[in-house]
Amino acid sequence: MSIQKPKGTQDLLPGEIEKWQYLEGKARELCRRFNYREIRTPIFEHTELFQRGVGETTDIVEKEMYTFLDKGDRSISLRPEGTAGVVRAYVENKLYGEPDVSKLYYIGPMFRYEQPQAGRYRQFHQFGIEAFGAVDPSLDAEVIALGYTFYKEIGLRDVTVEVNSVGNPAVRAAYREQIQAFFAPVKDKLCKDCQSRFDRNPMRILDCKIDQKYGEGAPTILEFLDEECSTHFAAVQQHLEAMGIPYRINPRLVRGLDYYTHTAFEYKAAGIGAIDTIGGGGRYNGLVGQIGGNDQPGVGLGLGLERILLVLQAQGVEIPAAKPLDVYLIGLGEAAEKECVRLLQELRAQGLSAEKDYQGRKIKAQMKSADRFNAAYVAILGDDELARGEITVKAMATGDQETVPLAAFADTLRSRVQ
Amino acid sequence: MSIQKPKGTQDLLPGEIEKWQYLEGKARELCRRFNYREIRTPIFEHTELFQRGVGETTDIVEKEMYTFLDKGDRSISLRPEGTAGVVRAYVENKLYGEPDVSKLYYIGPMFRYEQPQAGRYRQFHQFGIEAFGAVDPSLDAEVIALGYTFYKEIGLRDVTVEVNSVGNPAVRAAYREQIQAFFAPVKDKLCKDCQSRFDRNPMRILDCKIDQKYGEGAPTILEFLDEECSTHFAAVQQHLEAMGIPYRINPRLVRGLDYYTHTAFEYKAAGIGAIDTIGGGGRYNGLVGQIGGNDQPGVGLGLGLERILLVLQAQGVEIPAAKPLDVYLIGLGEAAEKECVRLLQELRAQGLSAEKDYQGRKIKAQMKSADRFNAAYVAILGDDELARGEITVKAMATGDQETVPLAAFADTLRSRVQ
Repeated sequence: MSIQKPKGTQDLLPGEIEKWQYLEGKARELCRRFNYREIRTPIFEHTELFQRGVGETTDIVEKEMYTFLDKGDRSISLRPEGTAGVVRAYVENKLYGEPDVSKLYYIGPMFRYEQPQAGRYRQFHQFGIEAFGAVDPSLDAEVIALGYTFYKEIGLRDVTVEVNSVGNPAVRAAYREQIQAFFAPVKDKLCKDCQSRFDRNPMRILDCKIDQKYGEGAPTILEFLDEECSTHFAAVQQHLEAMGIPYRINPRLVRGLDYYTHTAFEYKAAGIGAIDTIGGGGRYNGLVGQIGGNDQPGVGLGLGLERILLVLQAQGVEIPAAKPLDVYLIGLGEAAEKECVRLLQELRAQGLSAEKDYQGRKIKAQMKSADRFNAAYVAILGDDELARGEITVKAMATGDQETVPLAAFADTLRSRVQ
Repeated sequence: MSIQKPKGTQDLLPGEIEKWQYLEGKARELCRRFNYREIRTPIFEHTELFQRGVGETTDIVEKEMYTFLDKGDRSISLRPEGTAGVVRAYVENKLYGEPDVSKLYYIGPMFRYEQPQAGRYRQFHQFGIEAFGAVDPSLDAEVIALGYTFYKEIGLRDVTVEVNSVGNPAVRAAYREQIQAFFAPVKDKLCKDCQSRFDRNPMRILDCKIDQKYGEGAPTILEFLDEECSTHFAAVQQHLEAMGIPYRINPRLVRGLDYYTHTAFEYKAAGIGAIDTIGGGGRYNGLVGQIGGNDQPGVGLGLGLERILLVLQAQGVEIPAAKPLDVYLIGLGEAAEKECVRLLQELRAQGLSAEKDYQGRKIKAQMKSADRFNAAYVAILGDDELARGEITVKAMATGDQETVPLAAFADTLRSRVQ
């Protein structure tokens, strides 16, 4: 009996993996331009980090984490998101002591025990950025712009940006009371999730698809912003306008995580049905302190790569093909086959991509193999040609064929393909 | 109180991460030339996979795995090595049905609960390749050559290749009896690990650093090879010679994993003390069947990136620096600062790497920041210049300064840095 991959996980195979490489390459290149540098934190962390950093009462921490005891009886969890680990690393490695703003990005797997469905996996992958050490609203705008530019450059169409201000803790406390008062009369009619949100995080009732009808006419947090929050939010909007990033204000946007302050934002895309959010983020000025650090402001975003691939597919966006194979070598006869092994290493050491048969197939099957690899050239070496020190090179695009000295083979090919 | 990273894990931070990016970029580029394509399998698998694929009686499976029950009561383990998952994916996705040899590579984190020490972590990272579907000894030689070429191209010196044949199951059974007979008289004097190896896997006693003295004069497996094994081993050596890969035969080389057949090999490097192995691999013709598949031959290698970085450092090998920042923008005055936010987005959207201050620092501090980012240019915009539609651009290498129209700024910069 054969063993299957764990439920909710994926194998990313040749044919599909090129899309991932393309997205990740684009993300890295964009981060270079925006001056964000990569950070990699461990796949698992002490469970307490996520309790503090994501929130003990969130669905993620309450229900969805892969939590276990290691052999040293420490409670360990596979990371369910990327921000908490980066904040922990920022604090532990004292990056706050550096003179510049810490602008970091990560790309990697995250883990949540959820019911798998289209585009939702138990091991999923996020590209995220985090910037620590500045309250400047131009940094909020830059983070929003980076995400938007990423979507645009990979060819996604009809991406909209929604922004909101979720205020500071004082504003949120005042708003929370108002929103509880607003929902109190209908509390018993709310869905089970929202009934439990009523006490822990009533703002998220506004986000609920089921209870939308009860939220109509609810006060919005924008009515409660104090001067600091209003000024910050206005400046973010001005910068977005100057940068040419289209956005709309969504006063009901609160995001699933509890740590945001001031700016919260989401990207939405057309073509994947009702759950159209493809990424988001916000400012989190209290989070670094909460995780145990020197209190420093932060702002970041996270994009789900599986969802982005789903939208790319739904929109019919073509991903550029991988480079073709430079040359496929065919040896005819025992001595020629051996020489091909040597030639292969010579070509590869000189930077060319080269392949041969390993299965003792006939020349016709080998030609088909060369086609499958999209080879630019096929080179054929018989024992006779080997004796004369020559090799036949065929350009697959034109069918042109020529004989070149073996000693000049690598140089000839290199001048053709580069 | 702040939370620390789990014991035996690392944060890879800017300054260090560039080395990882460099190694991984080299590995990917080399795989392209050797026509290996990337595969990514899940971070965790059903525990049974490793019991079957690595071996239930190995130290890895017995003592070192991060094993836990998920919320659905499945026994899950973080992958302790890369081969088993790739074999599982090869079988589950029926890659054996494809006409060509499946040549795959992976780069990623692995997990073993071991005592951390220099270069050994509980989360460590491997670059590995696996080739399925051919018994051709030129494929064994290619795999060995790929690893050797990798070490050479990243600048490692004094790398030696050791090869051995560990035979086929019949040869191994015969040899096993001989080796047990050889060690039987000294069994009680062997170290605790070797006493337990005596029954399960006596060949590995030869590999033990502690019991080396008792192994002197032991028969070697090469004396027991049958014709199939000898012919295969001789062909591998011929190919290595033709390819110019220096190697030496080490008849005591057995590798830590039980699944190898025919070729086994290791790479050793100078400069890191007694445990000098920096990678290895071999042929595993029974493994695919053992994991539950259509029985297909395979051959592969795995290289530990932490150890490679350790040797690079010990040998003083320089890793090429990351690209410098193209331009650092300094805005003087409120209107100019706003315009800088817009300009930043314009430059970045056009492919330039650009940065500014986010902390309200004085011009002198901003110039220092530009230096830390190794900026090629600094552009200074005052409110007066903004009114005139101009910006001052300073080349940091020469100190040359010029004023250019704002409308031509991006184009001017682009022509300079590209």
